[in-house]
Amino acid sequence: MRVDGKHYRTIWPDPDGAAISIIDQTRLPHEFIVVKLETAAAAAAAIKDMKVRGAPLIGVTAAYGLALGLRQDPSDAGLDAAMSLLKATRPTAVNLSWALADMGDHLRPLPPPARFEAALARAAALADADVALCAAIGDHGLALIRAAAGKKRGTVNILTHCNAGWLAAVDWGTATAPIYKAQQAGIPLHVFVDETRPRNQGASLTAWELVQQGISHQVIVDNAGGHLMQHGGIDLVIVGTDRTTATGDVCNKIGTYLKALAAKDNDVPFYVAAPSPSIDFSLADGVKEIPIEERAASEVTHMRGVTEDGRIASVRLTPKATPAANPGFDVTPARLVTGLITERGIIAPQRAALAAAFPERAAG
Amino acid sequence: MRVDGKHYRTIWPDPDGAAISIIDQTRLPHEFIVVKLETAAAAAAAIKDMKVRGAPLIGVTAAYGLALGLRQDPSDAGLDAAMSLLKATRPTAVNLSWALADMGDHLRPLPPPARFEAALARAAALADADVALCAAIGDHGLALIRAAAGKKRGTVNILTHCNAGWLAAVDWGTATAPIYKAQQAGIPLHVFVDETRPRNQGASLTAWELVQQGISHQVIVDNAGGHLMQHGGIDLVIVGTDRTTATGDVCNKIGTYLKALAAKDNDVPFYVAAPSPSIDFSLADGVKEIPIEERAASEVTHMRGVTEDGRIASVRLTPKATPAANPGFDVTPARLVTGLITERGIIAPQRAALAAAFPERAAG
Repeated sequence: MRVDGKHYRTIWPDPDGAAISIIDQTRLPHEFIVVKLETAAAAAAAIKDMKVRGAPLIGVTAAYGLALGLRQDPSDAGLDAAMSLLKATRPTAVNLSWALADMGDHLRPLPPPARFEAALARAAALADADVALCAAIGDHGLALIRAAAGKKRGTVNILTHCNAGWLAAVDWGTATAPIYKAQQAGIPLHVFVDETRPRNQGASLTAWELVQQGISHQVIVDNAGGHLMQHGGIDLVIVGTDRTTATGDVCNKIGTYLKALAAKDNDVPFYVAAPSPSIDFSLADGVKEIPIEERAASEVTHMRGVTEDGRIASVRLTPKATPAANPGFDVTPARLVTGLITERGIIAPQRAALAAAFPERAAG
Repeated sequence: MRVDGKHYRTIWPDPDGAAISIIDQTRLPHEFIVVKLETAAAAAAAIKDMKVRGAPLIGVTAAYGLALGLRQDPSDAGLDAAMSLLKATRPTAVNLSWALADMGDHLRPLPPPARFEAALARAAALADADVALCAAIGDHGLALIRAAAGKKRGTVNILTHCNAGWLAAVDWGTATAPIYKAQQAGIPLHVFVDETRPRNQGASLTAWELVQQGISHQVIVDNAGGHLMQHGGIDLVIVGTDRTTATGDVCNKIGTYLKALAAKDNDVPFYVAAPSPSIDFSLADGVKEIPIEERAASEVTHMRGVTEDGRIASVRLTPKATPAANPGFDVTPARLVTGLITERGIIAPQRAALAAAFPERAAG
């Protein structure tokens, strides 16, 4: 997508593969800074510190990170070390283990001297596949927005949570792809962006994306979506997913479940942009089976932003003596999901429908 | 309640009534600052700028503010001017118009020279009545917590939203009164405090109160309550109300509705501490009839806190070009409310039950 009018992906290699470039997403929206990563450890740190985040981008970064590791040590031991380093960064992201498993299956049979070049090519292929996948999600989601526009004959109001935007993928994004496609199709749109505490990925990243693409939007606090829905202010909700069960339960950024409850209570369609790599066909009950990352209390007690004189600063919001709990994700049961927007179309959040759409994954 | 071990109310007059003292709640939790108000205009500004906030305290502040106005000008014109100045500060707070109407009815028949002293006495009576009312809510709510403790035989986990604490009243608070009474009764408690964006009254005020009273607690983001409920982490929810309809709909801080939906979805009892002055017997449908205050966008785009070196600073969270919407309250339909904790006991959120409990109000 565009940044200051120029096209970017979120990750790209040097021509010789000695480094990969990423956008440091922890500095957005206040500073646009490109960072070069030269080792698997640097790639792992970038994932762990959330310089890159979002399920698809984490997968692609891990793939390129593995290539960087093999550039230094292409032996079996080097491959194993890089894989375990990268795998330990974010336990909830299923794309991470999926991408690493794919890379491992592809590279391990090769003689060590061939591994680095092959890893680079495979990582590039994964990146291109993600772009194609997001574009397909965009096309299927566009049909939903077009239908809403036709029914309403006015601006379509969309609510989104967190950042399942192009910054979370390689290009297009997942939840944002239908929005960007609808903009290109000339459909009048307005996007309500949940700020998405504690890390404010909505207020900082999604809002920044929408500014850059020139799409009408307003940030709201995470508390406000239900009220807007009660008063007819939202035509549809589109969110992303970090992990989807075989039965259509959706594990996404904390607070998604509350918005799904409000959508159900107000008959607002609630769609989840779910690329098939997010689907874990081994899981049947999201609430019971998906482990939820407990993140640092400081994400809740402190907040980063820019001061009036332009410095980036962190401020404490709570009394010094007050502790915090910080679960990073929640699970939205399938009964609250209207449909999953996948690269193969809109699929009902049910085992049979998902298995029929992705037979090659469901059988594994 | 206690501050640094010493007992305070949230508002108190000078012995001669020439000024009233309040705690500047916009400086909490980082600074404890007492401010003296000497005019009706100063009292109105304190309400409008949310130096004092919370339905009961707003009412008592308006009453004392009217006394300050009559000290300067006890004529009918002076009474009218002070009343309209104070009434315009916060359109959603029904206690405000209720307290001012009560003061007006009481003072207008008196000869102007008698009005100031009478106003001071009446405001003090309103303050004392609020303390008694909150203590009664505390006793009735204590029974609910005691029952939960008996059933569970362990620590009772309570979720609260915003600050319906003693800082929102004169003493005890509304939603916190049962918690403070339970602490005094020796019941093991843990309180999850919604930070309550955008103004963070939970993270700043409720957390500060709980620190001062020595009650175990954790702040969570507003997104997290649903997840905690899905995993059995919450035994009951207690929130406040700014305005309650004759049918039991509850208008409270934005986001309350989302927590009520989650409580319903997980069979967690959802109680509202509702002093009877918050009940507006002229309203039947909260979502349709209660006007919701749209507050400044800067409350969403900026956040105040304390920097590492101890200065209070405001930081911008969003891109410069991003606008915000900021509805201040939402309405929780009665069907999601387990019971209203009033000064006359736990009342079902239904017209007949409320009318039976408060026949003198319902008939008006």
